[in-house]
Amino acid sequence: MNSPLQTDLYQLTMTAAYFQAGKAGQESVFHLFFRRLPFKGGYAIAAGLGPALEWLGDFHFSAGEIDYLATLRTKNGHPMFQENFLNHLSALRLSLDIDAIPEGSAVFAHEPILRVQGPILHAQLVETALLNIINFQTLIATKAARVCHAAAGSPVFEFGYRRAQGPDGGLSASRAAWIGGCCGTSNVLAGKIHGIPVRGTHAHSWVMSFDDEQEAFDRYADAMPDNSTLLVDTYDTLTGVDRAIATARRLRERGHQLSGIRLDSGDLAWLSQQARSRLDAAGFPDVAIVARNDLDEHLIESLRHQGAKIDVWGVGTNLVTAADQPALGGVYKLAALRRPDGTWQPRIKLSEQRAKSSIPGRLQVRRFHRDGAFIGDAIHDIDHPLPESITLIDPDEPLHQKPIPAAAASIDLLQPVMKNGALLGEIEPPAAARERCQKAISQLDPSILRLTNPHRYPAGLEQTLHDRREQMIATH
Amino acid sequence: MNSPLQTDLYQLTMTAAYFQAGKAGQESVFHLFFRRLPFKGGYAIAAGLGPALEWLGDFHFSAGEIDYLATLRTKNGHPMFQENFLNHLSALRLSLDIDAIPEGSAVFAHEPILRVQGPILHAQLVETALLNIINFQTLIATKAARVCHAAAGSPVFEFGYRRAQGPDGGLSASRAAWIGGCCGTSNVLAGKIHGIPVRGTHAHSWVMSFDDEQEAFDRYADAMPDNSTLLVDTYDTLTGVDRAIATARRLRERGHQLSGIRLDSGDLAWLSQQARSRLDAAGFPDVAIVARNDLDEHLIESLRHQGAKIDVWGVGTNLVTAADQPALGGVYKLAALRRPDGTWQPRIKLSEQRAKSSIPGRLQVRRFHRDGAFIGDAIHDIDHPLPESITLIDPDEPLHQKPIPAAAASIDLLQPVMKNGALLGEIEPPAAARERCQKAISQLDPSILRLTNPHRYPAGLEQTLHDRREQMIATH
Repeated sequence: MNSPLQTDLYQLTMTAAYFQAGKAGQESVFHLFFRRLPFKGGYAIAAGLGPALEWLGDFHFSAGEIDYLATLRTKNGHPMFQENFLNHLSALRLSLDIDAIPEGSAVFAHEPILRVQGPILHAQLVETALLNIINFQTLIATKAARVCHAAAGSPVFEFGYRRAQGPDGGLSASRAAWIGGCCGTSNVLAGKIHGIPVRGTHAHSWVMSFDDEQEAFDRYADAMPDNSTLLVDTYDTLTGVDRAIATARRLRERGHQLSGIRLDSGDLAWLSQQARSRLDAAGFPDVAIVARNDLDEHLIESLRHQGAKIDVWGVGTNLVTAADQPALGGVYKLAALRRPDGTWQPRIKLSEQRAKSSIPGRLQVRRFHRDGAFIGDAIHDIDHPLPESITLIDPDEPLHQKPIPAAAASIDLLQPVMKNGALLGEIEPPAAARERCQKAISQLDPSILRLTNPHRYPAGLEQTLHDRREQMIATH
Repeated sequence: MNSPLQTDLYQLTMTAAYFQAGKAGQESVFHLFFRRLPFKGGYAIAAGLGPALEWLGDFHFSAGEIDYLATLRTKNGHPMFQENFLNHLSALRLSLDIDAIPEGSAVFAHEPILRVQGPILHAQLVETALLNIINFQTLIATKAARVCHAAAGSPVFEFGYRRAQGPDGGLSASRAAWIGGCCGTSNVLAGKIHGIPVRGTHAHSWVMSFDDEQEAFDRYADAMPDNSTLLVDTYDTLTGVDRAIATARRLRERGHQLSGIRLDSGDLAWLSQQARSRLDAAGFPDVAIVARNDLDEHLIESLRHQGAKIDVWGVGTNLVTAADQPALGGVYKLAALRRPDGTWQPRIKLSEQRAKSSIPGRLQVRRFHRDGAFIGDAIHDIDHPLPESITLIDPDEPLHQKPIPAAAASIDLLQPVMKNGALLGEIEPPAAARERCQKAISQLDPSILRLTNPHRYPAGLEQTLHDRREQMIATH
């Protein structure tokens, strides 16, 4: 379903105006970034690059799409787009160079996740779809990483499809949640498309379709002797646990083992403790307790602190919609224009708030580390070599500065993914991004990972870039 | 991209268990409904039926889908699904009867939006996708109706694609927002697919691509003389307004008219008043002021109360993600099973909270009206004729009762849309749903439409049904 019409109309009207004004070929640089970390957290996990590259790789206007654009009219009935412009779109092949931070990387405010360079007309045409895909998947991967952090190593499964924002809101969320650390999903299509492990057993309706809960459990175990997790809260939860134990005994006699029981409601701390001691006393210490009930990272942390005996967490709505902040405010800003002599002229978008003023230039992010741990990121202009001695200056609070030790190792985060419109190499599978995410999280200081009031990771501007930005703010 | 794998795995494992247990053909009735109105509001607008019917109409398992299911394994490496079950799925054609409340209708808590009747195996296989589609679109149509109510007749455009939850999260949201009352969208693909008017002009990057704001405005107006709304806040907003006025004069000399100016930031109340008086003083009372800046229904209402001079509202993130409540808690519950003698046995799902206990039976909703206004809805069992004299009993608070005048006219809300797996008639275009929504809103009392602390619309259980539910709660 990839289409270049996955865009805001103003990208097309603006593009038409660039074309009319003879500026279609103006070389430009745009950065995609966010200004504030989501969930009042200390980090974000970049995601969505794979689907973004698929969309970019497919980019072309079909005859049907051009025909539709030709039907659009202004208020007073004139065609919105001229024929020569539509012919131009029809023949258009992207000639962009794109550098991106790989999926699954830890990223911070103001860091370009993507740098898009090429004719301004092309760069505008891809803005909205890139924002849509990367904003949402980065949001959900970050949420998943937080939820998994709260679960402290116990597996978390994503079960959110039924309340996700549309069919693809669910599919994209399953993909991003897996990258962020979930162990699997209930979404079967996500399993097929993205290779994510799928998980699930039965619902209340199975139990309600029998006259008797015990019979429902036994028949389910008959049908799925190696894959039975019994939902015990259709009527009275602890009676349900006792019946599940009876079914577990029946299974054991036949050489099988009950996988688990599931709690979907009630006081999960107390019920899980009661269920655990009944299961243990009956000789079933290996039957897992699965819990779900409008969980998020804060509830999971609280349940763990209360001593809940929960082995597997199921998280749905609050994860796939990122309910406490359902959108990442990612933006896509013009940062440089090429002069006729080939040099680059930095551009800035001002705002009354410093944090909302953009960072001018063609940017790269260098991440420094020591003994395997990340110690800071320098946002700098690729047209100015980084000095030997680097001090990071916080883009929001310039008095916050941090020197980087001279001996620190470093890597450049933005890597080329498209050159002159051609994808470079294969699009990596989400499993690779998931692994990168696990590693990145292990390299962040625990104070950054904290769910509430985390430390601020030093991601700042290199001195020359900071000075340029301040000067441009002062001039305007 | 319709696929029967748009489902939770537990629907398939449960379905396999029904199949193994010899219950595949058990006739059942499920209802799709929500228990609480979203946004603390007084009503909801049903939406999503069209795409749900498209998905149902396409329902079949392809060879590739069956092959994928055959690869799934239990923890100890056995195939999750038996071959005879997969053969059954492969040959399966839905034989469901579905009744639904038409899109764009006003709906209330506990009312079945869909009634699904047929073999329990089929009814389970469609649960997750129906919930996904109808939950989200109903949520967004309701949000849009609230936002448009706040705008009190001024046009509202939906501009949310860049921060929507995935590509289809955006596309579905544009569709639902239009049904709920928006006048158009920025999303070009939604325009093409759903016939929604599209709207947009230019972004900050257009202005930043010139050395001079005045030149940027003039060149834009040259390219789009009949369709120019100039974004005036790239640098200083009121200076931007003055420059837009200069461009408007230039356009007028050539026989064209500037459409509008757009404010994207700052104090919208004050800036819009200043802009209006400058435009009026310069002889441009018809140049519209468009505003957007993280707006929602409450901000729009507040800006109107402050005397903001805004003619057109653009609403993005808060509308398409329903930011203050990003999921509708719709559920799909078994309500009746057919006995061998052909009669129906009601089923109930209990909960410690009365509101979370389901309503047993095969249900219909009759809406009563007087002088064109809706006065109450009776949820009743279609197997018991409605009595002459009807009292509505609130399902959450049984002491809240309301008698319906004997002479009131009425209609049944649930209408057949699928019979034995075949769609009945054409799927109506969203424009028809949009019209129905406008009409429904005009038939609701203003106290129900209020954004905060609305009156509670009387949607209750008919007495016999209430008695049955109470008795079943007491028995269990």
